[in-house]
This record gives sequence, C-alpha cells and structure tokens, in this order.
Amino acid sequence: MNSSLQNLSKALEDLDDLLGSRLSTKKIIRDHHSGDESWHTPQRPDAVCFVNNEEEVSRALAICNEHCVPVVPYGTGTGLEGGTIACNGGICIDTSGMDTIVKVNTEDMDCVVQPGVTRKQLDAYLHNSGLFFPIDPGADASLGGMAATRASGTNAVRYGTMRENVISMRVVTADGSIVSTGNRARKSAAGYDLTHLYVGSEGTLGIIVELTLRLHGLPEAVSSARVYFEDVDGAVNTAIQTIQCGIPIARVELLDAEQVRAINRYSKTRFPEKVALFLEFHGSNASVKEQAETVGEICAEFGGSDFEWTVYEEERREMWDARHSAAYAAMAVRPTAKAYATDVCVPISKLAECIRESREDVENNLTIPSFCLGHIGDGNFHYVFLVDPDSELELAQVQQLSGRIAQRAIDFGGTCTGEHGIGLGKQKYLEIEFGAEAIALMRLIKQAIDPRNIMNPGKLLPLEQRH
Amino acid sequence: MNSSLQNLSKALEDLDDLLGSRLSTKKIIRDHHSGDESWHTPQRPDAVCFVNNEEEVSRALAICNEHCVPVVPYGTGTGLEGGTIACNGGICIDTSGMDTIVKVNTEDMDCVVQPGVTRKQLDAYLHNSGLFFPIDPGADASLGGMAATRASGTNAVRYGTMRENVISMRVVTADGSIVSTGNRARKSAAGYDLTHLYVGSEGTLGIIVELTLRLHGLPEAVSSARVYFEDVDGAVNTAIQTIQCGIPIARVELLDAEQVRAINRYSKTRFPEKVALFLEFHGSNASVKEQAETVGEICAEFGGSDFEWTVYEEERREMWDARHSAAYAAMAVRPTAKAYATDVCVPISKLAECIRESREDVENNLTIPSFCLGHIGDGNFHYVFLVDPDSELELAQVQQLSGRIAQRAIDFGGTCTGEHGIGLGKQKYLEIEFGAEAIALMRLIKQAIDPRNIMNPGKLLPLEQRH
Repeated sequence: MNSSLQNLSKALEDLDDLLGSRLSTKKIIRDHHSGDESWHTPQRPDAVCFVNNEEEVSRALAICNEHCVPVVPYGTGTGLEGGTIACNGGICIDTSGMDTIVKVNTEDMDCVVQPGVTRKQLDAYLHNSGLFFPIDPGADASLGGMAATRASGTNAVRYGTMRENVISMRVVTADGSIVSTGNRARKSAAGYDLTHLYVGSEGTLGIIVELTLRLHGLPEAVSSARVYFEDVDGAVNTAIQTIQCGIPIARVELLDAEQVRAINRYSKTRFPEKVALFLEFHGSNASVKEQAETVGEICAEFGGSDFEWTVYEEERREMWDARHSAAYAAMAVRPTAKAYATDVCVPISKLAECIRESREDVENNLTIPSFCLGHIGDGNFHYVFLVDPDSELELAQVQQLSGRIAQRAIDFGGTCTGEHGIGLGKQKYLEIEFGAEAIALMRLIKQAIDPRNIMNPGKLLPLEQRH
Repeated sequence: MNSSLQNLSKALEDLDDLLGSRLSTKKIIRDHHSGDESWHTPQRPDAVCFVNNEEEVSRALAICNEHCVPVVPYGTGTGLEGGTIACNGGICIDTSGMDTIVKVNTEDMDCVVQPGVTRKQLDAYLHNSGLFFPIDPGADASLGGMAATRASGTNAVRYGTMRENVISMRVVTADGSIVSTGNRARKSAAGYDLTHLYVGSEGTLGIIVELTLRLHGLPEAVSSARVYFEDVDGAVNTAIQTIQCGIPIARVELLDAEQVRAINRYSKTRFPEKVALFLEFHGSNASVKEQAETVGEICAEFGGSDFEWTVYEEERREMWDARHSAAYAAMAVRPTAKAYATDVCVPISKLAECIRESREDVENNLTIPSFCLGHIGDGNFHYVFLVDPDSELELAQVQQLSGRIAQRAIDFGGTCTGEHGIGLGKQKYLEIEFGAEAIALMRLIKQAIDPRNIMNPGKLLPLEQRH
C-alpha cells in the first residue's frame, strides 16, 4: 500500500466519522460522478461525499487537506470541459443536496441561494415575483457550478454572464476556512475582489457554498422574432449591426441550417431549414415594437427573409425551448457519437471573419456531422462536432480543427472559451491566450490558496513544468 | 547608515542609470507627490520616477524589488483615502507621462489607453465619435488610478463602475513581470479573473500600464431634471421607487440643502436651497420622455416640488458641472479646513434608514459644517465634513462619527466604501466588513504576488499581527 493510498484510507475513515452513510464508495455512485456531458473520458473518484451544509464542506476539506487527497466539487455534472472528472481520483464533494433558496430580496432585486440550487429551480421559485435570473446555459445546471465555470447563455448580450450577476459568495478554501467574499452592496471599493476571483475558478480554489445573485425585473413587454438567411454572413452582419446601433437586444442567437434541421427533428418544430437568427426584445410596449422594427430593417438590408415576430408567450416558449435543446438535438443526429463543442468568443468586429474562416476549415477538413450556433451578440459561437468515441482518427481531426479555431479566435483578440471554461481540454490554449507571465501569476495564486494542490487538481491550469 | 538606507541608495543608483533626469529627489517634486485630496497627512517619497513606458515600469520595479524599497504608484494624486501617500517612504512611480490613447475600436465599442490618460482627456478625444466613457469621479483622475481604486461616479447606476468597464489590463508585478490580464472578448470563461483582481487593488499588487476600456454609444436623446424636497426622506424614497420600477435611469444624485447652498455660492447657480435630486435619462426620444414622465409622477408621490426637465445641453451642462464641483464647493465654505468624506454603500432597501440614522447622528454630535450627497441609485452616499486640521478634537469627533456610519452600513449588509477605496483610512472597517478569514485570504494573495511587500505597503490591508 503506497503512501497516497494510505492517505486516502485515513481520509475515508475521518469522512466516514463526519458523514456516515452520506459517504459512499459504491461503484455505481462513483460511476455517476465520473464524468460530465463532454467528450472527455470519465474517471471515477474514490468516494463521493453528499454534503448538506457549509460546515460539512469545511470539515470535509480540512480532512482531505490534512491527508493530501484530491477533491472534485460536483453540482449536476453537466459541464462541457471535464471539470467534474476525477482525473486524479480522490473525493468527489456533491453539493446537490445544498439546494435551499435562502432568501429573495425583492426590493433589492437579489437573492441568496445554496450552490446546489439549479437554474430551473430558481426560475420556478421566482415565478410571479416580477423578477428573473437571466443566465441560462443549455443544461439545468447548478448555480454553484455555473459560477465556478463563469457560465452564460442566451441572455448574456443584455444581462451579462455569471461574472456580472454574482454579487458575492461564501466559499470554503482548501484548508476548510469559510470565507465571505463580499456583501449585498451594489458596488464596493473595499479590498481585493474575491468574488470575481472565485467566479470562473472551476473548483480549483475552493468550493462555493452560498451565492448572492443579482435578479432583474421582468420587462413590461417581451417579443421574439425569427428571420432566415441564405448564408451565415448575412445573419452575422445583422447581429453586428444591431449591436453597433446600440439596440438593447435581449437575445440574438445564430443557428446554421444543419442545426435548425436537427432541432426540427428533435423538437418536432417546423422552422425553415436555413441559417436562422432567433431574437428577443425586452422593454416597454413601445420600445419592444421600436426595437423589432429597427432590427427588421437591418435584417432586410442583409438579405434576411420571412422576418416574423410575436408577443405570444406560447410561440416564444416553443422557440426558446427548441433553442435550449439544440445540443441534445444535435447529438440525436448520431446517437452513438459524443459531442465535442468549441466555444470561442471574439470582438464583434472580427466575428464574421472568424466564423467564415472556421466554416471553410470545417467544410474542407471534416466529414462527420457538425453544427454551428452562437450567442453572436457577444461574439461567442460554438461548433459542435459529433465524434465516434471509438475512432481515434475522428477525435484527432476534431482536436486539430478545434485547435485552429481557438488559435484563430486568439489571433483576432478573443478567447478560446466564452462560457464553457478551461477544464481538461483547453489548458494549452489558456497558455497561448494569456502568455507565460499571466499563467505564472495564476499559478502563484493557486499555490498560495491551495498549497497542497488538493482542489480539483489537473483542471484549468496547465501542468507545471518542474525543473 | 542602516540597511534600508543602503538599499535605497543602491536602488537610486540603478534608477538613475535607467531614467537619468526623470528620477528626481528634489524636495519640491517630492512634496508634489506626498499627498492626495484627503485629510490624511502628506508624507514624502524619497524620490520620484517619471516613467514613459511599460518597459521602464518593469525595470524600475525589478530594481526596487531587488533592493526591497517601497513603491508608491501615482497618477493625478486626486484620491480620497491616502492611496498615494508615501507612508513608508520609498519610490513614487509617476505614470502621468504615459498618457497616450493607443486605440479606439469604434465597431467594438472599446478603447486602449495608457494609465496616465485622464477621464476628461478621453472625453475630449471621443468627442464626435458617437461613443463615451461613463465613469466620472469628481476629479479629473487618471484612468489607471480610477481602475486601481475601483472608482465610479454619477453614471454608475446605469453603466456600472470601473469594475464593469475595464475589459482587460496590462500590469507590472513587483518583480517586474509584465502580465496581460485578458483580451478584448466581451466575455470569457478562461482562467482566473486577473482583471478584476487588479481593479481595486490600490497599487498593492502591481502597477497598471495599459487598460482596455468598454465604451458606450451616446444615447439618441438625453434629458435632465431637477426636483426639490422638504426633507431627505422624500428624495431617497423617490430614488428607491425609481430603481425598483426598473426605470433605466442614467443618473440620480442627492444633494442636501447645505450642499446646494455651497454649490450656488461656488458655481454662481441659483438652485432652490432645499434637498434636491439631479436626474438624467438616456434613451430614444420617446423613451426619455416616458422615463421623465414616470419619474415626475413618482416625485409628486413623495412630495417633490418644482420638477423641471430639460433637453437643452447648456442647461444640462451647467447642472452637472455644478454637481461635479460639489466637493470643491463644500470645501470653499471653510477654506482653512480639510474635507473628510465618508463613502458607504448599502442595499437600496436600507438606504432611507441608513441616511436617516446617519443624519441624526451628524446633527446630534457635530457642529462643524457637513454636507450630504450621494449616488443614491446605487445606495451610495457621502457625508463631507470640514475639519480644522489643527483641531485634534474635531478630527477625533469626525473619525468616531465616520466609524459609526461605516459600522451602520456594514450592519445593513453594505460596505464602508462604495468608490473611494480603503487606502490608509478604512482598514479597520475592511476587517469588520469581510471578517478575519477573508482578510487572511487577501493577505495570502498579496504575499504570493508581492512577497517582499514593496507595492504600496501600508495601504488596503490592515497591518498583520505577527506572532
């Protein structure tokens, strides 16, 4: 029995004292906590802890830290970059049981939630309150996981991402310290911005145990629109022009013809199978009409056709449900495959060029099914490739192609990931994007906060070259 | 000659080789770099470096780090919490010469500037571009200094603070490393958020040498309004109701009767000398009118009188120039005094109560001139006290009172500083606000990035209790 196994066994003893039956080493439980929704190969943790409160998280981390055992935080397992895969074994801390909505402060338009609360759970809770939380990744992710990956979704162009919508948090660091990163003030010039340090830290600096989130007032009026184009350029240029005109559009989503076709098949919709923009406008009755008219004119200018808009909630819901199922719809085209998603984001002035070059690259170099969709008001788009998990050739081709797309985005002044995170798959691009000095600075921070490297080791930061 | 003097003298030799005549030890130059606009006693640095580019900053910091000499970054010296006071001597690095506007990307609505560019310089440069930068503290501060203190101003209620408007930066860390904290993408899930770590770090983690800033499209229409109240409560409740109705108001500024009187005297205006709200609306022609009408109704509900609104630029400019001179107008009431400003920010549901209790505290315990003004859409308000610098009694009274105001804000779930920073004066409240665990975490970060504690030592973080 080597020393790391000895450590693990001591940690399991202490965790058993702490959690009893809520510590599991059953294979089926470990299997359930071995992967996420990405193409990365699942790897099982040695045990799973089901925690109920921040005190338990604190004590569990103190135990793992004492025995130098890796910890993998886990919410819903719906990530797209392998963040919850136990690539170094260790203890998975499942926070899904911490699912209490602690408080909604209607007057201040904020709420306090535990990390296991999912976005749909919060949606349902806020029903009829006049408020909503705008961040909507495709999956029904946990809010702790969404903060940890700096998630966004279709509303980010108007309402921002998790970066702009987490007011403060409570986090537990590697040694078990419970830290409050801020308060409920709308702005503050007090001290280092610990909140933003933890948003996007992917479980590598600690575990989020409570979040104070910004809520938004439901707009007086909402209208949606759809419009179709002969090619992606027209759709992209429409979105760019809309943003540059300062129209406060709430959603502007690109779907290529293949994606629309997959959605029609999966969601039983009958959208014309062309390049589409799905749009949404929020505001007063007058302003929603004004926005839709202006955008209608821009669409016409760039060759858009069949522009139709609606204020009926049922029609809107059908359209956005279909949009949120896009990834699952794509996957249904080749059920035996795994989805491999790129996630670049570029300055909007470079978006048309970046998508065009990427599309040519895909068309010239790939024969497997691929889909392009994007939150293009932010400059963020995805290519989704359906890869046969048994084909090393396909995976190699897709990885090379994804690498070229990431490099292209970085060359255009953008990022390799707009909303999925670095996880296991993008560490190489993180280094290219930021440069060695920034990576060294990130590593200093990591080492200071987690000196034994127990927190989600192997994620986000590239492995250090030791001399 | 003790070791720290030896170190200083060696550093000065190396800096002389690097900068020649742009290194100054002249008393008059050191005097000019000894203080800021706060009540804190100025303290001279041992020398001042006038740097011209990031390479010089890098080499200067490497020299100071090698010899363990304190470094104080300096922009315009217009801070309000002693951030530029050389309380441990050392080298002042004056970045005012780095004042180039490197690039304006009109299509992406962003710009790249050096840290010595001031906000009014950028304003003038953007004239006729259709874009503007919204952050407007009272002083014509440098953008590097504004980022370092997480500054805001009158537009923050709609456009956010420096936190929301710095897209990325280049910074030089204590050892001279030049780090790029991000890129121009509007959102990113890549790596730790170094940008936000440096926004608000008050020169304690390095020196900002370049900023990429978010710009905003000039609204199609702008209108301003003024309204007067018999007491502060009516004005505050009007602001709260306006925010809670979701009106996207651009500015909502409170001034008490004493502040309006001081402004009239200083700026030769003739505003009724009552509690006032200065308001501004941005949007389309129709929406600006709609907003002003709705707010006019809310004002009437809370006892507002003489509501008048205007779209004429000259009238608007007169009003906002007067508002921006508020601090100088207050100081002119007692020219021999120094201004001592509080800066709390609370959740808006607690704002009326917090201002009311604070006002009673001021009225019951202070006889020197005091003024209340605030960016109350954010929940942020200032009390400005005019203190005789030779009276220990006055200073002690004001410090105790300010402490009670800070404690009250913290008890209401708010912060001791909305926009001025911690600097020298608020370290005690930082600890109360965040708790020992968060301070310990901040200290770990500081020690990791600046192990020799050369970067603006004595600022932001409370002195560590060594055992």
